[in-house]
Amino acid sequence: MAMADTVSRQLAFLAELDQLKSVIRQSPLINRTRKENSAEHSWHLAMFALVLGEHAEGVDTHRVVQMLLLHDIVEIDAGDAPIHLAGTDMAALERAERQAANRLFGLLPPDQGRKLHAIWLEFEAAETPDARFAKALDRLQPLFLNTLTGGGTWTENGVTEQQVVDRYGPTIERGCPALWAEARKLVSRYFAERERAA
Amino acid sequence: MAMADTVSRQLAFLAELDQLKSVIRQSPLINRTRKENSAEHSWHLAMFALVLGEHAEGVDTHRVVQMLLLHDIVEIDAGDAPIHLAGTDMAALERAERQAANRLFGLLPPDQGRKLHAIWLEFEAAETPDARFAKALDRLQPLFLNTLTGGGTWTENGVTEQQVVDRYGPTIERGCPALWAEARKLVSRYFAERERAA
Repeated sequence: MAMADTVSRQLAFLAELDQLKSVIRQSPLINRTRKENSAEHSWHLAMFALVLGEHAEGVDTHRVVQMLLLHDIVEIDAGDAPIHLAGTDMAALERAERQAANRLFGLLPPDQGRKLHAIWLEFEAAETPDARFAKALDRLQPLFLNTLTGGGTWTENGVTEQQVVDRYGPTIERGCPALWAEARKLVSRYFAERERAA
Repeated sequence: MAMADTVSRQLAFLAELDQLKSVIRQSPLINRTRKENSAEHSWHLAMFALVLGEHAEGVDTHRVVQMLLLHDIVEIDAGDAPIHLAGTDMAALERAERQAANRLFGLLPPDQGRKLHAIWLEFEAAETPDARFAKALDRLQPLFLNTLTGGGTWTENGVTEQQVVDRYGPTIERGCPALWAEARKLVSRYFAERERAA
């Protein structure tokens, strides 16, 4: 492929990615002025990986950063699916995300598209140490934001401490036991304070 | 430092970073619904580095990604300085950014803080191949967004084709000559179309 064609395909992909800035998640910003979008969430997560990577054993932080930068781009077509929303058709959502991945990575020069697509599939499968750690951070970040914003999505959805432990715990512990030990303390402290304030 | 203290300092840093989502830049989103913030800009730039890294010789893409994830966090204290704003006191801005870097990287465990601070200083100095490429992408991304949004900040500020070439060209060419060749064509095409439409 000629240089101009390669760059032109790469820029078309990068232009398409701009839409992730308009996909709105459930988590509020810490200053509570608005909800977070998936592009800034991806940046924040990549920073979580850079800063917290030392606590995960056998993990290649650079690959985890790549994974987290890419992990949500399928939401451009498939939207963001909140963790607390009962009744989501998970099979339909997975299909939509897989189609989105085919379309988006297909915009790139074929070799590069295949390489990045493989990293996204690895994240989705959540089997390698890198992918497990990436998944753990993707749960840890909203948990952390919720403890700093009066419960955030937990308060909105009437979620109990036990439900938080059940919904966030296994993924975080599987990807990074050391971080789950710390996150568990944050959750206890948050619910204890809420109890006292009630 | 005990594990709990290390994680606690790291989380304090990551919480502080959330404010970058509220620093507003001049560039519009491609869908023109609003202006871009510095957190999502940093994500987009990291994706530019991942995708376009192959065109820069002697560059470590992973380091460039790290640099771009970090490069704007000083704006949390110092704000975003637009490229087209005449009369900015550059010395005062640099002082404010250096103070911000001291404060923010100082939140981390000392060893990690020094390491990330050094990467930020390397970006600012713009002398290594990695830093030059990161600077090139930081100019290329808004140039590209402007060509896709009816001129964006160029139209608002009455900027001519020659001014675009003068303000963006040297930094992009210094960091990645191959990409400047392509970007130059985009600029010509944009201004030619605007001429025709006028």
